Amino acid sequence: MSASKGRVLLAYSGGLDTSCILAWLIEEGYEVYAFMADVGQEEDFEAARKKALAVGAKKFFLEDLKREFVTELIYPAVQANCIYENVYLLGTSLARPVIARGMMSVADKEGCDYVSHGCTGKGNDQVRFELAFYGLKPDIKVIAPWRIPAFYHRFAGRQALLTYAAEKKIPVQQTAAKPWSTDENLFHISYEAGILEDPDTTPPADMWKLTTAPEDAPTTPERISIEFARGLPVKVTVPAENKTYTDPVEVFLALNALARKHGIGRIDIVENRFIGVKSRGCYESPAATILRVAHMDLEGLTLDRNVRALRDQFVTIELSRILYNGHWFTPEREFVVSAIPSSQRTVNGLVRLKLYKGNVAVEGRSSSEGLYDEKESSMDELGGFEPTDTSGFIQIESIRIKKWAQANIRKGQGGIEPKDVYGSRV
Amino acid sequence: MSASKGRVLLAYSGGLDTSCILAWLIEEGYEVYAFMADVGQEEDFEAARKKALAVGAKKFFLEDLKREFVTELIYPAVQANCIYENVYLLGTSLARPVIARGMMSVADKEGCDYVSHGCTGKGNDQVRFELAFYGLKPDIKVIAPWRIPAFYHRFAGRQALLTYAAEKKIPVQQTAAKPWSTDENLFHISYEAGILEDPDTTPPADMWKLTTAPEDAPTTPERISIEFARGLPVKVTVPAENKTYTDPVEVFLALNALARKHGIGRIDIVENRFIGVKSRGCYESPAATILRVAHMDLEGLTLDRNVRALRDQFVTIELSRILYNGHWFTPEREFVVSAIPSSQRTVNGLVRLKLYKGNVAVEGRSSSEGLYDEKESSMDELGGFEPTDTSGFIQIESIRIKKWAQANIRKGQGGIEPKDVYGSRV
Amino acid sequence: MSASKGRVLLAYSGGLDTSCILAWLIEEGYEVYAFMADVGQEEDFEAARKKALAVGAKKFFLEDLKREFVTELIYPAVQANCIYENVYLLGTSLARPVIARGMMSVADKEGCDYVSHGCTGKGNDQVRFELAFYGLKPDIKVIAPWRIPAFYHRFAGRQALLTYAAEKKIPVQQTAAKPWSTDENLFHISYEAGILEDPDTTPPADMWKLTTAPEDAPTTPERISIEFARGLPVKVTVPAENKTYTDPVEVFLALNALARKHGIGRIDIVENRFIGVKSRGCYESPAATILRVAHMDLEGLTLDRNVRALRDQFVTIELSRILYNGHWFTPEREFVVSAIPSSQRTVNGLVRLKLYKGNVAVEGRSSSEGLYDEKESSMDELGGFEPTDTSGFIQIESIRIKKWAQANIRKGQGGIEPKDVYGSRV
Amino acid sequence: MSASKGRVLLAYSGGLDTSCILAWLIEEGYEVYAFMADVGQEEDFEAARKKALAVGAKKFFLEDLKREFVTELIYPAVQANCIYENVYLLGTSLARPVIARGMMSVADKEGCDYVSHGCTGKGNDQVRFELAFYGLKPDIKVIAPWRIPAFYHRFAGRQALLTYAAEKKIPVQQTAAKPWSTDENLFHISYEAGILEDPDTTPPADMWKLTTAPEDAPTTPERISIEFARGLPVKVTVPAENKTYTDPVEVFLALNALARKHGIGRIDIVENRFIGVKSRGCYESPAATILRVAHMDLEGLTLDRNVRALRDQFVTIELSRILYNGHWFTPEREFVVSAIPSSQRTVNGLVRLKLYKGNVAVEGRSSSEGLYDEKESSMDELGGFEPTDTSGFIQIESIRIKKWAQANIRKGQGGIEPKDVYGSRV
Repeated sequence: MSASKGRVLLAYSGGLDTSCILAWLIEEGYEVYAFMADVGQEEDFEAARKKALAVGAKKFFLEDLKREFVTELIYPAVQANCIYENVYLLGTSLARPVIARGMMSVADKEGCDYVSHGCTGKGNDQVRFELAFYGLKPDIKVIAPWRIPAFYHRFAGRQALLTYAAEKKIPVQQTAAKPWSTDENLFHISYEAGILEDPDTTPPADMWKLTTAPEDAPTTPERISIEFARGLPVKVTVPAENKTYTDPVEVFLALNALARKHGIGRIDIVENRFIGVKSRGCYESPAATILRVAHMDLEGLTLDRNVRALRDQFVTIELSRILYNGHWFTPEREFVVSAIPSSQRTVNGLVRLKLYKGNVAVEGRSSSEGLYDEKESSMDELGGFEPTDTSGFIQIESIRIKKWAQANIRKGQGGIEPKDVYGSRV
Repeated sequence: MSASKGRVLLAYSGGLDTSCILAWLIEEGYEVYAFMADVGQEEDFEAARKKALAVGAKKFFLEDLKREFVTELIYPAVQANCIYENVYLLGTSLARPVIARGMMSVADKEGCDYVSHGCTGKGNDQVRFELAFYGLKPDIKVIAPWRIPAFYHRFAGRQALLTYAAEKKIPVQQTAAKPWSTDENLFHISYEAGILEDPDTTPPADMWKLTTAPEDAPTTPERISIEFARGLPVKVTVPAENKTYTDPVEVFLALNALARKHGIGRIDIVENRFIGVKSRGCYESPAATILRVAHMDLEGLTLDRNVRALRDQFVTIELSRILYNGHWFTPEREFVVSAIPSSQRTVNGLVRLKLYKGNVAVEGRSSSEGLYDEKESSMDELGGFEPTDTSGFIQIESIRIKKWAQANIRKGQGGIEPKDVYGSRV
Repeated sequence: MSASKGRVLLAYSGGLDTSCILAWLIEEGYEVYAFMADVGQEEDFEAARKKALAVGAKKFFLEDLKREFVTELIYPAVQANCIYENVYLLGTSLARPVIARGMMSVADKEGCDYVSHGCTGKGNDQVRFELAFYGLKPDIKVIAPWRIPAFYHRFAGRQALLTYAAEKKIPVQQTAAKPWSTDENLFHISYEAGILEDPDTTPPADMWKLTTAPEDAPTTPERISIEFARGLPVKVTVPAENKTYTDPVEVFLALNALARKHGIGRIDIVENRFIGVKSRGCYESPAATILRVAHMDLEGLTLDRNVRALRDQFVTIELSRILYNGHWFTPEREFVVSAIPSSQRTVNGLVRLKLYKGNVAVEGRSSSEGLYDEKESSMDELGGFEPTDTSGFIQIESIRIKKWAQANIRKGQGGIEPKDVYGSRV
Repeated sequence: MSASKGRVLLAYSGGLDTSCILAWLIEEGYEVYAFMADVGQEEDFEAARKKALAVGAKKFFLEDLKREFVTELIYPAVQANCIYENVYLLGTSLARPVIARGMMSVADKEGCDYVSHGCTGKGNDQVRFELAFYGLKPDIKVIAPWRIPAFYHRFAGRQALLTYAAEKKIPVQQTAAKPWSTDENLFHISYEAGILEDPDTTPPADMWKLTTAPEDAPTTPERISIEFARGLPVKVTVPAENKTYTDPVEVFLALNALARKHGIGRIDIVENRFIGVKSRGCYESPAATILRVAHMDLEGLTLDRNVRALRDQFVTIELSRILYNGHWFTPEREFVVSAIPSSQRTVNGLVRLKLYKGNVAVEGRSSSEGLYDEKESSMDELGGFEPTDTSGFIQIESIRIKKWAQANIRKGQGGIEPKDVYGSRV
């Protein structure tokens, strides 16, 4: 018997694809260890373990990464209001770095020179996984079967996989495959591919898994409150349950349950993948949707205007792009994230919310930070500064504008008549 | 009889404040012309006209500015997805430039050297109006009574105004004043001041004027579709009414009616005024909320990724800031707006929406632009490019990351162990 | 004899590499047309033509692209003050789009399904050329021999090429190869590779080709002036020569000659290539260095502050990146360039310069635009606005800052003592 | 004798203006303490002390702030490559925060409720000082005589001040006033106002104080080297002097001396003041000019591309604006500066420079950081990655561009013909 080509740590899901990849890697002469991460997805891990070992994996590793997923990835994203293309809350992107780190840690301890995964050759996840691998362990070698012609030509289509599975005695679930793909974790579930590839096809009602349809949600609103410290949710109060939650993972799970009940967090978009292809995706991000509304609202009360504006334009946008493109283990992520703490120093306070049929409405907020000053902002009384100061402010602000207006008038380009708003060419 | 100090064009609202200002300006020796703009607010313009003339205005001007409000201000804002501090759709800000231009046009024709308004000395509107005046007619002189000590000390409090009104025989509405201020136009209504100055006070249910509460909205969803050309809504189809709308003003009014019915477009925030004071505001922006969702969704399908990213980071953010701060008639607005057309050249297509109890859900979108390619994005079939190309892409993308990881490892700063995500100090 | 595999248009330089590629393509069964662009480089085009035909090219095309190089590429870059990583003026990047368009035009007319070039597999130029090809003619097929293993393994090292050249009777220049590579055009020359790959090696004095060493430049300064209209140089006046230049190409050549004489425009940097590799390059950009100084100076006098700031942060940076990365024929270039005209509407005037031993010093500037106002800016006299207005301005500007300072003091984090300037962690 | 109106700490310069202000404040009933900061300017502090006390100051404070000026203000600016409007190195702006803090510290200890200064009502310095005061001690009261009508009308013109000085027995220097104003410190000297207010007036040769004219500088180049650690200059080696400098203040002074000798660091610009007025200024920033060249060059070798790009676009630009506008003691400064350390972690190494007649030329650089890899970047050998990977990279990069090109062609808007580069209107 010939020596192994080497030891491969395979990102294993328990599904058809990675089971076939497991068998194929063995067939190709590798020794395969299977790896699963528990990032909060609904999964029968024990069944997966048995299956991996049955198919031929030498070892099986299950790592519970939920806590670090919440505290190391989700938290900075909440603080920075991360969002991709104004809509997508980055649920899949956020999980990849902790999974990749979990894998590299096992690969390191177990002496695996190779890692493998079942990502397709067209998506974002292959990029996110592999760049994370290289950012942690630059000498790791990656086997990506769906980018190896010998593999993808052999297994073109589900039927070829099923045939191979039968041949390799890989147990296959009897339930019919859903006509879309999903990725699930504590933060969200995504749906893409299959019938969703037509961007004009409305997703079927039974696709959505993590949230009730707004139409089926309770007809009575529910009130909750979230307390933040340094931009992080440290306490969720749910009066109807007479409960509070303070542990990071529990906070997230409690908000997920509330949002699920009230139909909060569904989106359906066409987004731009890192590789430049447009792609349609549907997502449910229940807790994250509530947290985003509450956190941004509290920033209104507690964050300085200029810090907020700079943070929005740079940290929010850049960190979202970094996450989406799988650039977590990079110097630019280090750089961008290093600016978060000083932006959240004052984001302390309480937000009161109403949840109702898909809506998250802020009903009030409070803080002891003191950047808001009722008397100063009041239209009805003097306070804080003299109205005459504003005259000076406006005069100074207008210096530059008047000069420009005078120049326009002199050149016959100014004046009061309506003009084409988009300007004319020089 | 002494000569007039000059002719003043007063931005007149018909209310107590500007009626008293009218009387006071006359008392101060000015000849006063009253100006009202119809920007779609609910108003008895004829009653206002009579009142202004009764109080002593020499002339009264009513300008219908609805169409230019929609086509010159709202349209670019829709194309650029303008929003302030992630929440406020800028309804008041958008109306100010057309009102200011209307006033400068009348001031010019009627030989008014002065303009006056009833804005307080603490808000944004005084700045927006006056910078717009100066950007159009840099030699205009502004009388802002609420920033003149002789005025604001004399009229400190509503009672002093009422007394003055009685003295000057200014008719006052018998209804009690609402405990907040409003500003209304075609695009939105704002509520601020009064009881809203406590940011933890939930607005009373009867405050909201332009929209049904989601709780009271129909229990059956309604489907509509919006067709965009170059990023602008050119056709709204409402199957339930068996109607379509294509005229810009009618499109807006139809969407307002739909959103009102379905409880769409309420917000409640603490925002940062241009003068640096934090302020609590509630807003209803019915049509604008629907349009924003639809337009952004269509951009997902039709706008290039890099153009979208650059537009979001620069045009959206800067134009929103320009609008909020009243910098419409400035060179920077000219500059920023000049980039909109090329960003919207491909934003053509149809978006299908479901309206239901405060929610605007996209159910599908289509376009003939051809930047989306089902075959190329499909996870299930080859098409467009070889999966092996992605291997090269990832290898090249990882060059820089590997070098950094190797350097970290050499310096003992790399590796796989979880670390403080916010980084440590140098 | 078998049919040709197809017709290839080869970007031909006349040198050893592309001559061998020409022969190799023929050997591989292609029909080869040779293409040269005259973008102002010093070259014996007639000798190159003879050589290409001698090696076996069926046709030879020489396109004079100097004028479009200046007016379509260099001009926008001058208007936008384009620069990469604060140092490199983008001379090679700027030429690529016109050359690529020239090639696609010939390929189209002559029915070439393929293009080929001699760029290495590690540099920027392969990317710039090919992305430009695809942006113009998405169905073109590219043959890049230095990325084809059969080619680069066969021709590993200069000696293999020389042997092949001898075999194919390709004439080779007797002069020894320089220990670096160059790329030259009207705008600049670049030096890289060879001995320059050690970033601590000072380039030898005889490397620099387009400029005199500052040490050898005239000991007497020379004065010139440049007149700009809409940000473009429309007239260069050289009193010492009693000459003026107004034609775009002549303006550029005249400034090149002046800068060459006075030792202006050398740089030596380590830059970051698009593919993520760091690379050392030396450049001479004579005319461009003068134009940059003059244009930026005139913008000080004639461009509004806010337009300048926005243009610097977005157009300058993004267009420079677009150029460097070869993204000229893309929607993002269209988008970014569309904002240039409105930014340059007022950039009209005259700049007076002193050239002396590597220095370009501005000695004065004038314009009739009128945004500069001596009286207003004068520290010695009143004018434009009342000093008391500034008090109001400062009071309003300080509202936000005082609130923050008060909050800091309340929390014991404020105060006057020196603190670690980089802040502490939350 | 009546009680004092209060105690004022006056920013005293020893010159005519602040001496008259000192006398006037006493005349107005204040008790005046005089404050001077030693930030490296050339000054007879002892003479100033005597003069202040002679004119009537109760106390005189001289604070040596040179070290904190260098380490707390100049250092972050060097690390971030701060520059305003691409030209001005911010020498005056950088000194203001340390001076303001010195004053607030004395005001606090000495129980001064008021501070006063001699800044004009049109410049930046009044804003920088006062915003810094308020950011440290929000309840401080500022007396700005040049913005008080009673003062500026009384002292309109130098002659009125001279008369008042004579009356108050204030000694006046016999030398004629220079026809411009200056501000000097360790970092730079500025010249503005007077004859410089005509932007087309070339400054007279005898104006420049801190540097030799390039024409008069040595005819032999001088070589030095600068070693950086975390982006800061930790060692300057001057072989010609056989000396090295490591102390921050000495490093700065040594570089100042070298730059002075070689004519390095003069600029002449029209800039945009914070209040919106354009203003002409000339500056000499000797050491800073050398440090900027060296630091940016080393970043080429040692800083990751993406970190550099983000830092340039955000930190460099925003921190420069913050400094220029006097926003040092603000939350946004805290925010922006907090990102510097992670950007400079790898900026370690040595830069070799040639100084010659106004030129600072980099002749080489080295570092042990290892982000530069000769083999990888080499055009002449394989290394680091396969050339075939680049093919994949280019194919993936072109996906989006091809789609756009195909759409253009379908719509008849694509193709190869030269087009108006600035685009046409939609």
